[in-house]
Amino acid sequence: MKKLFASFLLLFDFLSHERKSTLKSETFNPEWKESFPGVWQSTINQPEDFNLLLAANKPPRVETLNIKSKQPFPVSNEEIKTFTKNGKTWLRFPLEKGEQIYGFGLNFKTVQQRGQILRLHVDHYGGDDNGRTHAPVPFFVSSKGYGVLINAARYINVFVGTGVRVDSKNPPVAQDRNTDKKWSSKPYSDNLEMVIPAEGVDLVLFAGENMLDVVQRFNLYCGGGVLPPKWGLGFWHRTPTLFNEIDIQNEINGFAEKDFPLDVVGLEPGWHSKSYPCTFEWDKTRYPNPAEFSKNMSGQGIHLNLWMNPYISPDGILYDKLLPYAGTHTVWNGIVPDYTMPEARKIMQEHFVKHQLDIGVGGFKMDEVDGYDRWLWPDVAQFPSGLDGEQMRQTYGLQMMTLTYEIYRQKNERTYGLIRAANAGSVSYPYVIYNDYYNHKDFITALVNSGFSGLLWTPEVRASRSGEEWLRRMQTTCFSPLAMINAWADGTKPWSFPEVYKQCRDVAFLRMQLLPYLYSTFAGYYFNGTPPFRAMNLEEGFKSDIEMVEKNFNATENPYSEALKKEVKDQYMMGEFLLVAPLFNMESERKVILPKGNWYDFYTGEYVGNGQIITVSPGLDKIPVFAKDGAIIPMIQKIRQTSEWVENAPLEIRVYGKAAGKFILYDDDGTTFDFEKGEYTTKMLKVENGKGSIEDLHHSEKWSFGEVSWNFMSKN
Amino acid sequence: MKKLFASFLLLFDFLSHERKSTLKSETFNPEWKESFPGVWQSTINQPEDFNLLLAANKPPRVETLNIKSKQPFPVSNEEIKTFTKNGKTWLRFPLEKGEQIYGFGLNFKTVQQRGQILRLHVDHYGGDDNGRTHAPVPFFVSSKGYGVLINAARYINVFVGTGVRVDSKNPPVAQDRNTDKKWSSKPYSDNLEMVIPAEGVDLVLFAGENMLDVVQRFNLYCGGGVLPPKWGLGFWHRTPTLFNEIDIQNEINGFAEKDFPLDVVGLEPGWHSKSYPCTFEWDKTRYPNPAEFSKNMSGQGIHLNLWMNPYISPDGILYDKLLPYAGTHTVWNGIVPDYTMPEARKIMQEHFVKHQLDIGVGGFKMDEVDGYDRWLWPDVAQFPSGLDGEQMRQTYGLQMMTLTYEIYRQKNERTYGLIRAANAGSVSYPYVIYNDYYNHKDFITALVNSGFSGLLWTPEVRASRSGEEWLRRMQTTCFSPLAMINAWADGTKPWSFPEVYKQCRDVAFLRMQLLPYLYSTFAGYYFNGTPPFRAMNLEEGFKSDIEMVEKNFNATENPYSEALKKEVKDQYMMGEFLLVAPLFNMESERKVILPKGNWYDFYTGEYVGNGQIITVSPGLDKIPVFAKDGAIIPMIQKIRQTSEWVENAPLEIRVYGKAAGKFILYDDDGTTFDFEKGEYTTKMLKVENGKGSIEDLHHSEKWSFGEVSWNFMSKN
Repeated sequence: MKKLFASFLLLFDFLSHERKSTLKSETFNPEWKESFPGVWQSTINQPEDFNLLLAANKPPRVETLNIKSKQPFPVSNEEIKTFTKNGKTWLRFPLEKGEQIYGFGLNFKTVQQRGQILRLHVDHYGGDDNGRTHAPVPFFVSSKGYGVLINAARYINVFVGTGVRVDSKNPPVAQDRNTDKKWSSKPYSDNLEMVIPAEGVDLVLFAGENMLDVVQRFNLYCGGGVLPPKWGLGFWHRTPTLFNEIDIQNEINGFAEKDFPLDVVGLEPGWHSKSYPCTFEWDKTRYPNPAEFSKNMSGQGIHLNLWMNPYISPDGILYDKLLPYAGTHTVWNGIVPDYTMPEARKIMQEHFVKHQLDIGVGGFKMDEVDGYDRWLWPDVAQFPSGLDGEQMRQTYGLQMMTLTYEIYRQKNERTYGLIRAANAGSVSYPYVIYNDYYNHKDFITALVNSGFSGLLWTPEVRASRSGEEWLRRMQTTCFSPLAMINAWADGTKPWSFPEVYKQCRDVAFLRMQLLPYLYSTFAGYYFNGTPPFRAMNLEEGFKSDIEMVEKNFNATENPYSEALKKEVKDQYMMGEFLLVAPLFNMESERKVILPKGNWYDFYTGEYVGNGQIITVSPGLDKIPVFAKDGAIIPMIQKIRQTSEWVENAPLEIRVYGKAAGKFILYDDDGTTFDFEKGEYTTKMLKVENGKGSIEDLHHSEKWSFGEVSWNFMSKN
Repeated sequence: MKKLFASFLLLFDFLSHERKSTLKSETFNPEWKESFPGVWQSTINQPEDFNLLLAANKPPRVETLNIKSKQPFPVSNEEIKTFTKNGKTWLRFPLEKGEQIYGFGLNFKTVQQRGQILRLHVDHYGGDDNGRTHAPVPFFVSSKGYGVLINAARYINVFVGTGVRVDSKNPPVAQDRNTDKKWSSKPYSDNLEMVIPAEGVDLVLFAGENMLDVVQRFNLYCGGGVLPPKWGLGFWHRTPTLFNEIDIQNEINGFAEKDFPLDVVGLEPGWHSKSYPCTFEWDKTRYPNPAEFSKNMSGQGIHLNLWMNPYISPDGILYDKLLPYAGTHTVWNGIVPDYTMPEARKIMQEHFVKHQLDIGVGGFKMDEVDGYDRWLWPDVAQFPSGLDGEQMRQTYGLQMMTLTYEIYRQKNERTYGLIRAANAGSVSYPYVIYNDYYNHKDFITALVNSGFSGLLWTPEVRASRSGEEWLRRMQTTCFSPLAMINAWADGTKPWSFPEVYKQCRDVAFLRMQLLPYLYSTFAGYYFNGTPPFRAMNLEEGFKSDIEMVEKNFNATENPYSEALKKEVKDQYMMGEFLLVAPLFNMESERKVILPKGNWYDFYTGEYVGNGQIITVSPGLDKIPVFAKDGAIIPMIQKIRQTSEWVENAPLEIRVYGKAAGKFILYDDDGTTFDFEKGEYTTKMLKVENGKGSIEDLHHSEKWSFGEVSWNFMSKN
């Protein structure tokens, strides 16, 4: 019996042991090394070899970063603290009164993250901004003008101004809940703290002239933004899952007959001979001759995009080849290849090239790389490279991006596609995030957030309960990085609601007309890291103080009388000049918060306000869009396909307001990577004193515009 | 520039490094050492010093465990696998077809856990059975007749039969989602896997003659179940938060006038001079003379229970004393003492003794020791003993239990109270879990689950939308470990709905009559570890195959056509003989699943069925309760307070059915720990051939019963 108790340690025996106090002794301030102007790196203790930027596999855009402005270290390093204990690394950053924190990836309900508690974990979106999302990028931007990337492929717990420390410099005062009405369940917190479950971590800290500059440097550090092929910015339509080549042709004919824009057709699981898990082989009954089918599509100006999830069916030719490189667990009984292994990458890439790229497939939609737990590999999974399930979960989207990007790059063909998981370092890859969630307002909040973290997001259109909802969704998808109907399950078409077909068509053609503006905006993403779609908070002169709305006490529903955060999360900037303020189903009017400076109605050119809140009710015909004073918007004529945007396209340059303005119009061949070698043209569009001018910046033969007409929209 | 790139490791450099494969080499089968009959311990690699049973601080019940039956090792150890890597320990247990898994603490919506993914994390209950709950006990019980305790004070990720392994012995067959209707989003899994974020872990494995025996051994290993004071099983009423001593007296008068049972009055935050954080000092305006007030209460047969949360207000006398032992973070600006430190325990215990126990306070309700993240200390918090926020989160409830229990034990007075967080090892402590959640059906599911994990749970009554709901809730709280109205916020009283007052009073008095049965049942918890309230699944002869209800495909709501689990989670056993099948608001009838054997209506003694599903509709007057064949239910006469249960209480022994039966009737002084020294009486109540007899088992002077009448309820 004595033996047993010897092994059964009681609390008091435990307490009498010598215990080392670790509270302060091991805490230290990081050491930073400036690697580019305004960019510092720090290595805390012993980080893991594998991390997010390693998985993303893109070097920084050195030339551009090196000519960025010098910046002082933007935060007191005395107040940045860290230590490592029990296999975990703690980090603390100071927060000041009024300081706001943005970023941490693709959130759907919140923009400002102060007050949030997140566990950054790649996953499907479950309806809460709790860190489980398709792209939980561990990068935050402070309104104090700096940003930090935590470069770790781990689930990171983040407490954004929630914890209150005993040693706080500004400790809140305790209140008496018995009688004090000022009592709050969430006292003021002056710090942002994190735990990374690793023996150390690599940090990158970015300064900037303002928050946008911080984001630009982050994007450039991660390789710079993506420039899609021109066709990628046209209209997309994903077809029902079991469509065959005849169904597809009929669908395309429908678009032509109805005169609706269409550049890309997406094939859903039925193109595989088996799906969930996938064979990556064409189904011979539905597509007897894939090469001919693809060529036929191409002849009609249609680019094909193929759905997949990367779990390999035992019934396909890939299975035996990839089995040696598979993880311990299956997904829907398909193996999960470890694409950090060169052998596995090579097998998959060769298959893609032979069976898809060589016959002309334009790209992929890579599904199910996010979650969720009930069918993805569990955290206990192990992979042959030595990585574990958690590291794999955080980076599988990145792995699929790099794997497919490389083969398109080898062909010198740009691709543009969809993916359901991303992370830090995704910015240079041609993939737009989507999901199964479908709240329209939350879709727009995701679009607002995407720009903080180097992400692109599409508010795709699937089904709708009414014509009005359909139209409102069509309007927002046309003002997004990827304009798409996803009819995989419902078989919807642009004309599914005939009562709003005209308006749907109008906004789709408007997107096509705006392509020069949009394409040039993406060029700015590539060259400068400027997010093409971004939050108002990144706009100079935009003030949106957060408002806390008191909620009534209720013993069961709200026993701590928690207040609700109210913030601006339903309007955003598309490029430098256009403010988009979508309307939603059953809402005939809305408030729009205009930053300082004069703003003009995009459609009429009329002055609408300056640094104020306006109410607009444009009816069903229009999505509210506003142009900044000095806005220069290059547009082409209405085209149905980007293949019609060829030599000598007449260029209309719309000008708004009276301020001087300039805009760099960008052009290239639209499809290859030759622009990286200088094969592109940029011209400076300028307006001064009511007169427009065009100035050559970078010259090449790649220039598709012809006659130019200046259109001064604001008459008075 | 070269320097920069040297530090910027690209994927391909990384891949070319020598990487060790850890897939199989480090995996091993645990080694087990039998410490009691049918109880084995294993130490995997290097566990942390601190763990759950250490925090619980109770040795196993050695004498009782040693006389348990010998059992073979109940599972193939070849199929139990483990390894440690990256500071985490992996565990795998086999699952067979049809095997079920129960336990993992207090779940509110599910009983059977196979198919669940849990992150065991002490927290408030957020509406999902995802491991975040008040008592996420890392102990599971298999229907194959064994159980395992993972003795780690860490957030443990558990995958209960969800992950499918490539090396599975029974791999499911891949289906083609394109065309195969059998396709399932969740293929068959043959394993239970976990990750414990530590370099090792201590395991305890329990065998048994059946699942109940496994649970008993687990409970005995953790110190055996609690025996509450008799008054703890009477009726409780918690009063509005700012009540003063006059309000309290008025409330008690009301109970007396209305002739409603009342043993315990709970004072809510207003007894503190300040609350949230708390001073633990009486508010002199509301309670000018606490000692006199308490004495006055005691004279009326009332026991006082005081609400608290353990966060120390800077405005009280405890603050300066406890500050040296506080963690890095505050909760509502109160410090968080580290009660694993003897100095901190001593300070708090001395305060409790002087200001509460010595004036006669009967116990505490310990709030806010569970969560949630937005106001508790964050995981980044550190504590002076060297423990971190995660370890503290998993054990703070345990710490508060042991701290308060010790001082009552020193006084030789039993206490019974409420707590909002528990974990493995709580079983011997006199605390019942409660929360703010209020779904009545889910409250019952929690009661069903509590018995698997050594927990007690109260479905307390707060407010109701109707008299019917009020009555249904009153009925279930009277058939629970703690019968209570919690009027802290709403000021409800038993007669708040006059239309059902009679029925409420009836069920409250019925509970009082059942006290001998209930008290003896708790004695069985203490002596044998038999949970007093438990799931039907622990009952021999109960068969409930899980039913999966297909749900329709919906592209947005249910894109993977997930099925819904349907199981029995709304009926339970109270003690050995009584099956309780509550009715809920707006439900006039319900199905009851009877285990094999004859069952009888508790109220009438009529036969109702055998191993079948019956439908009952007893009207508002009754909560459906059924007695097993051979049931022996000792009852006393109607009393309003346990103080009336004194010498020579007439004993009615109800007998149900025709089978032979026996029941050990237990008695003692009802308030002290003298029973542990043998100061208790047990008698065997026996029925054979329609005749009852009583046989002495353990004799002492503690015996409160007088005249005995046998009542054979089943006439034919």
